Amino acid sequence: MPPDPRLLMAGSSPALMRAVDLIRKKRDGGELTRDEIAFLVDGAARGTVPDYQLSAWLMAVTCRGMSRAETALLTEAMLGSGEVMDFSALGAAKVDKHSTGGVGDKTSLVVAPVVAAAGLYVPMISGRGLGHTGGTLDKLEAIRGFRVDLSLAEFRAALEACGCAFGGQTPEIAPADKRLYALRDVTATVESPALICASIMSKKLAEGIDALVFDVKVGDGAFMKSEGEGVALAELLVDTAKRVGKRAVALITDMDKPLGRKIGNALEVEEALEVLRGRGPDDLCALCVVLAAWMIFLGGRSASVEEGKRLAEEMIASGRARDTFRRVIKQQGGDERVVDDLTRLPRARGTEIMRARNSGFVTRMACERIGRASVVLGGGREKKEDAIDPAAGVVVEKKIGDAVRAGEPLCAVHYNAEERLGEALQMLETSFVIAAEAPQRTPLIRRIVGA
Amino acid sequence: MPPDPRLLMAGSSPALMRAVDLIRKKRDGGELTRDEIAFLVDGAARGTVPDYQLSAWLMAVTCRGMSRAETALLTEAMLGSGEVMDFSALGAAKVDKHSTGGVGDKTSLVVAPVVAAAGLYVPMISGRGLGHTGGTLDKLEAIRGFRVDLSLAEFRAALEACGCAFGGQTPEIAPADKRLYALRDVTATVESPALICASIMSKKLAEGIDALVFDVKVGDGAFMKSEGEGVALAELLVDTAKRVGKRAVALITDMDKPLGRKIGNALEVEEALEVLRGRGPDDLCALCVVLAAWMIFLGGRSASVEEGKRLAEEMIASGRARDTFRRVIKQQGGDERVVDDLTRLPRARGTEIMRARNSGFVTRMACERIGRASVVLGGGREKKEDAIDPAAGVVVEKKIGDAVRAGEPLCAVHYNAEERLGEALQMLETSFVIAAEAPQRTPLIRRIVGA
Repeated sequence: MPPDPRLLMAGSSPALMRAVDLIRKKRDGGELTRDEIAFLVDGAARGTVPDYQLSAWLMAVTCRGMSRAETALLTEAMLGSGEVMDFSALGAAKVDKHSTGGVGDKTSLVVAPVVAAAGLYVPMISGRGLGHTGGTLDKLEAIRGFRVDLSLAEFRAALEACGCAFGGQTPEIAPADKRLYALRDVTATVESPALICASIMSKKLAEGIDALVFDVKVGDGAFMKSEGEGVALAELLVDTAKRVGKRAVALITDMDKPLGRKIGNALEVEEALEVLRGRGPDDLCALCVVLAAWMIFLGGRSASVEEGKRLAEEMIASGRARDTFRRVIKQQGGDERVVDDLTRLPRARGTEIMRARNSGFVTRMACERIGRASVVLGGGREKKEDAIDPAAGVVVEKKIGDAVRAGEPLCAVHYNAEERLGEALQMLETSFVIAAEAPQRTPLIRRIVGA
Repeated sequence: MPPDPRLLMAGSSPALMRAVDLIRKKRDGGELTRDEIAFLVDGAARGTVPDYQLSAWLMAVTCRGMSRAETALLTEAMLGSGEVMDFSALGAAKVDKHSTGGVGDKTSLVVAPVVAAAGLYVPMISGRGLGHTGGTLDKLEAIRGFRVDLSLAEFRAALEACGCAFGGQTPEIAPADKRLYALRDVTATVESPALICASIMSKKLAEGIDALVFDVKVGDGAFMKSEGEGVALAELLVDTAKRVGKRAVALITDMDKPLGRKIGNALEVEEALEVLRGRGPDDLCALCVVLAAWMIFLGGRSASVEEGKRLAEEMIASGRARDTFRRVIKQQGGDERVVDDLTRLPRARGTEIMRARNSGFVTRMACERIGRASVVLGGGREKKEDAIDPAAGVVVEKKIGDAVRAGEPLCAVHYNAEERLGEALQMLETSFVIAAEAPQRTPLIRRIVGA
């Protein structure tokens, strides 16, 4: 167990720092300083610290954890590794929301135009589908012509013109995160709360926002299965946001069942548009309004969350949110007529209904498996290179708590890839538990952290 | 915290294994199976698992530990990644000893010829100097012409002809260890007992030996400072040896002071030759005899350790060990006349005496710093590329427990590099603590593990 002789050379000056000493410090449970974290993150962004040292450090962080202060320093360093957009010249606050990912979660498509219509700016940088969950960018691309690969100038122009804009992570945004995220994926260090927090936050803060609403999903269809895990991450996210000077709140929301009824890219755009017409499923409508309300409130556009809710509902009822969405679709090259004509969305050639074998109540849904069935049909990617089938997906007819009679439809499968239909149906057949007794209803919003 | 969707693909068959799943299992404190460990070690040897995954796994092992069973499996897999020498045709047992490294430890140069003279085979694969400690290969190369870079065929020929042979790790021996060791050095994963054990053992077992004696150094000049750490490693080494079917014992020996009096490559060869002439310092002579005795006993050449001691002493007194050493030096291309004529060893141009400032007893020595002073003079390497000065080093005149009067020599510095003399002297000046009261004597051999 040779203590490295060169250890003596390590000082507090970056010029004399060595990655191995910082890895050792974290391995032994130490707390890294601002300079030390900056050294590693800078090394990740500029390529001066090799992959093998970064991944040893990531594993040490995963095993030993990071303090709240360290997590904030890591977030700031990762943010600082790239460009931060400056929308300070705009006349109103900039707000955004981030979801940790779930099945059927198309709230971004609704809340961005609602909040923009209410007079705030929503510069939304989103991701692609991951695992069994969909991604906002993939969904938007189901609209013919919609471009998400905007340059920073185009993004700014869309934001100024429409009040909201949808983009993906550009090479300029948090390049350290890009490198570290790729490593985490292959080194079993994805699960560290500190690393999750810094990764999420560094990208969101690059939007130059003033306030941020987190939607932390918990349950079978979420990445965090237990409420405890979700609350812990929510507290870390909100604390980190506050440490870096942002207003923030986190909603812990139910993901034991899909959100809304539709899963799959075009299907989710369709359902989002239904919400913007005031006709969406109750759970999805309610969550969109609450998320938008918090964004409006934290953005200083309402004196209370209640007032924010009324404002959000008004934006939907008046059609102003729909107008905003129409404008941003057009601005980003998409066919904006889709807002008023859902038949302009891609539609699958085949539909297959899956029916209940017995009567009773739906008491449990294998929500993750339902999401995965949509991926199998082409609604998501199993490998990064896979192409998406925008029309493929699943429409759920019965959800937890619903009464069902034998022979009634449980869900419908929308498919083009016939060769994958069997696998998807097989997955779905074991995804609904029907029992004689109605289950207890669980609330959609389980807790609010940081309010 | 996405659970990797591809996790479902991981099975027990190597074809379906993925490194990331094994890293995750270890990260979560799981125990890897034989197949799983083989997959990673094989991937290290063949280059099919990338550095960044290996280093994440090494860090997970360092943080979570390995069970005894896993450590043995890791040892076997690393051994199996390369060639294992087969000396089964030789008429006697093959034995070796391994030291965890200390200051002034030249026992290998003595015990190999002693044990070979006693009728056993000692196929000794050694290393270079590391940090503040010297290496057997560097010491042997202080003998003019001595070649340590033997091919396997040359190594075998030397062993057959002389009963012992000295070589370095060849590319054929434990290639997985070579890759993992290089990574450990730069990822702060050197200190894991399981990794230390597997690294040591895989190289030693490649010698095709039947029994192994460990000399686990503890104290200021050792890599393990506390006896507790030393005992833990010793128990792991002995247990692992037994699990893979080898006889083994570990001596926990004192390294709070240098072993013998001479530190530096030629100086240590000189002192080893003094021991072989029956005239070496007491501590060094005693340890060499005990180590040789255990090797002789475990090799089945004596009925007891006591009898082994008598045999070892007889090999020295009769000059037979010296004859063996002379033979092996000649066999490996070295100037064997050095055995009878110490002036044939390289000698430094300058000598500087450091004297005691006050009278009393030496109560403490900064043993590691003394070793490092020898490195500074050129006796070791600060960087891998540095050249060794075989003549440079330090001769200690007073050790812990010795009475000393002000003005008496504490040590002598042998140097060629005048520009480094100042630094070395400065290090040595703070390396001796002299107090009025004599310290308690501590035993040279603190414990024996596995006897």
